[in-house]
Amino acid sequence: MASAYAAVDGARLSSILSKLPEVGAKLGGQPAEWRVREVGDGNLNLVFIVEGPAGGVVVKQALPYVRLVGESWPLPLERSWFEYNALVEHARYAPRLTPKIFHFDREQAMIVMEYLSSHLIMRKGLIRGVEYPRFAADIAEFLAETLFNTSVLAGSAAEHKRRVELFARNIELCRITEDLVFTDPYREAPLNRWTRPHLDADKRAFEKDSALKIAAQARKYQFLTAAQALIHGDLHTGSIMLNESDTRVIDPEFAFVGPIGFDVGAVIGNLYLAYCAQEGHESSPGARDPYRQWILDQIAAVWTGFHDRFLALWRKAKQGEAYVAGLVASPQDEAAMEAERARFMRKLFEESLAFGGLKMIRRILGLAHVEDLESIADPAKRAVCERKALAIGRELVLGGAAFSGIADANAAAKAARA
Amino acid sequence: MASAYAAVDGARLSSILSKLPEVGAKLGGQPAEWRVREVGDGNLNLVFIVEGPAGGVVVKQALPYVRLVGESWPLPLERSWFEYNALVEHARYAPRLTPKIFHFDREQAMIVMEYLSSHLIMRKGLIRGVEYPRFAADIAEFLAETLFNTSVLAGSAAEHKRRVELFARNIELCRITEDLVFTDPYREAPLNRWTRPHLDADKRAFEKDSALKIAAQARKYQFLTAAQALIHGDLHTGSIMLNESDTRVIDPEFAFVGPIGFDVGAVIGNLYLAYCAQEGHESSPGARDPYRQWILDQIAAVWTGFHDRFLALWRKAKQGEAYVAGLVASPQDEAAMEAERARFMRKLFEESLAFGGLKMIRRILGLAHVEDLESIADPAKRAVCERKALAIGRELVLGGAAFSGIADANAAAKAARA
Repeated sequence: MASAYAAVDGARLSSILSKLPEVGAKLGGQPAEWRVREVGDGNLNLVFIVEGPAGGVVVKQALPYVRLVGESWPLPLERSWFEYNALVEHARYAPRLTPKIFHFDREQAMIVMEYLSSHLIMRKGLIRGVEYPRFAADIAEFLAETLFNTSVLAGSAAEHKRRVELFARNIELCRITEDLVFTDPYREAPLNRWTRPHLDADKRAFEKDSALKIAAQARKYQFLTAAQALIHGDLHTGSIMLNESDTRVIDPEFAFVGPIGFDVGAVIGNLYLAYCAQEGHESSPGARDPYRQWILDQIAAVWTGFHDRFLALWRKAKQGEAYVAGLVASPQDEAAMEAERARFMRKLFEESLAFGGLKMIRRILGLAHVEDLESIADPAKRAVCERKALAIGRELVLGGAAFSGIADANAAAKAARA
Repeated sequence: MASAYAAVDGARLSSILSKLPEVGAKLGGQPAEWRVREVGDGNLNLVFIVEGPAGGVVVKQALPYVRLVGESWPLPLERSWFEYNALVEHARYAPRLTPKIFHFDREQAMIVMEYLSSHLIMRKGLIRGVEYPRFAADIAEFLAETLFNTSVLAGSAAEHKRRVELFARNIELCRITEDLVFTDPYREAPLNRWTRPHLDADKRAFEKDSALKIAAQARKYQFLTAAQALIHGDLHTGSIMLNESDTRVIDPEFAFVGPIGFDVGAVIGNLYLAYCAQEGHESSPGARDPYRQWILDQIAAVWTGFHDRFLALWRKAKQGEAYVAGLVASPQDEAAMEAERARFMRKLFEESLAFGGLKMIRRILGLAHVEDLESIADPAKRAVCERKALAIGRELVLGGAAFSGIADANAAAKAARA
């Protein structure tokens, strides 16, 4: 299959898959019986569901341009290689929470993976008001396990440098985040979109908000220079598929070695977006009050669960080349180390909130929006939700240092909504 | 010259150089007339001075092991490749302060460069009590120009990621720093050395100093994860050659993309070592008082000069992808940006002092010592100097946050010496 890249269609895909014994067995029957559907609703790729008599697989193929924008915005196929490598790392540290990979073809920028037929994209569940009992614990586990274990708190400097080296080539996808999250929402950029004319004044105010935009750039500097762990890089609620009993994190094509708080913040920020969007989805005012509270509870549970598990991993780590375990010998050493861990986690808390706030703002004033809000048909109603989300986002970026913990962030969100 | 690596001797070196027309012209005459001397006094490499009738060149060849320790500690020849790449970057941004490179042979791990016949290694000058009028301004310029211009404050994310990728492979030399600077001095490690028995109790106290060793590990974490700029990585006073009118920075084989404060701190820490060592070199107590003050003045001038020039570069930068210049439009924006720059520089100040302090301590309790102190023949006298240096180092690591500026660091150093 070392043929030149070509975007596949159904017939050619069946032919490709028929040459992969493991996939053929999974699907069952003959290639002619396989049903192929293109279901990609993301911004970048082709996604096919292929079903045969025995089962299904998902095939994700990168396109050489940004699907959301068109061929005018080329994007390297190589991102598929980074996604594959990140999936392999995720499978190592969070196997239960990562889709199984059956095949990877670097030339075709194609990943063949598990079809999660009973799972829903979490963002869609949040719009419908579905409570997922496993969500917070599973995502906290995913965050803690993948971020801790791909850091120098867990492993050697040499393996970290190899990780840094490999993912440093994921330049173009990082550039999308750099521009769309940290910069474009705060200036006039051709691709920015917002609910007009309702948010025109808000957009202008954000462009003039000196404290906010400099804070956004300080976080951009951190995004560009803090090589802490292999981060997913796009861990919003559209990258989470789940049901009542099972959770998976998909689509890590933005992966690189970056700041831990970026992933944690992505989850938190997108939950606050969902929180603000409920007003546009409830059948009558207040009908979603319990669900709103459920979302806030999940935010607290994700942070607390991540925090506790990350710390627990750190306390028992023996191989990390930062904070060498052998140096911590006496009770005094242990106390100093615990104080240092607390300082580290506190900093991470503020960073996570700030990244989360920036990810909220960019979904309202920048290019790529979220279905939570876009699906609110009435623009006036949508703008009301969005304005509250902007206020929460701004508070998370600038106010985190004043929060004693995640409950304060939730209180600020409640206050902004009221 | 794609022949297999072999450590050269004089005859073979002349034969190699005779095939390089530029070098041949520089030396003049016939290869048989060239005098070759091995002069390497560093820890890692062979260094030859080759002189002909017309002039000289220096040839540096990596050895496949740590020269200081022997063949039991292998070290990749590839470090020469990183040194060459760093020299090229330094020549781009600080051409006046970087030795000219005539030839690089990756296979032979050999760099042929300018012979600085009228320059002295600064460490030797500091031992002799020589005042160099250009030193502080030149080193401040070198630090500011190389560190600013290889950061995302000056340039694009894409070029930064390529820099990160290239130098991420310099694993083994980084490992030396990781172990010898941040970890080994604070534990029993077979290669540690100190002035025995005079400093036995001090060594034990440092091993039990919970606050200090956790602070050292927090800086190690930063060393491992802060991809701020292409740092020299070993910028002590033995890596500076100078005379009255000219200054050059040599030997960047430890280069990688790391924390800016590590280079700044290396200069400052080594100046404080020289400050403490004067007591062992003065003809009578107090004879070197003016020179001691000169050293403190240089420390202040290096920091201030670096600080001012780095800030000036930043203020006029237009291409940096962090802190995008186009976002700073109004006087309010400019004020917020200046406040952010001040925050950044203040953080860098504390980081530089902390790294500097750690580099002092490791030269007294770790494997690799410095001639400033080693050349004090009387161990009792040396130990007195070293104990003061340890106190200053510790203060720089733990006390930086309480210093309002570099004058406070100098005052602390004076107090520790008194």
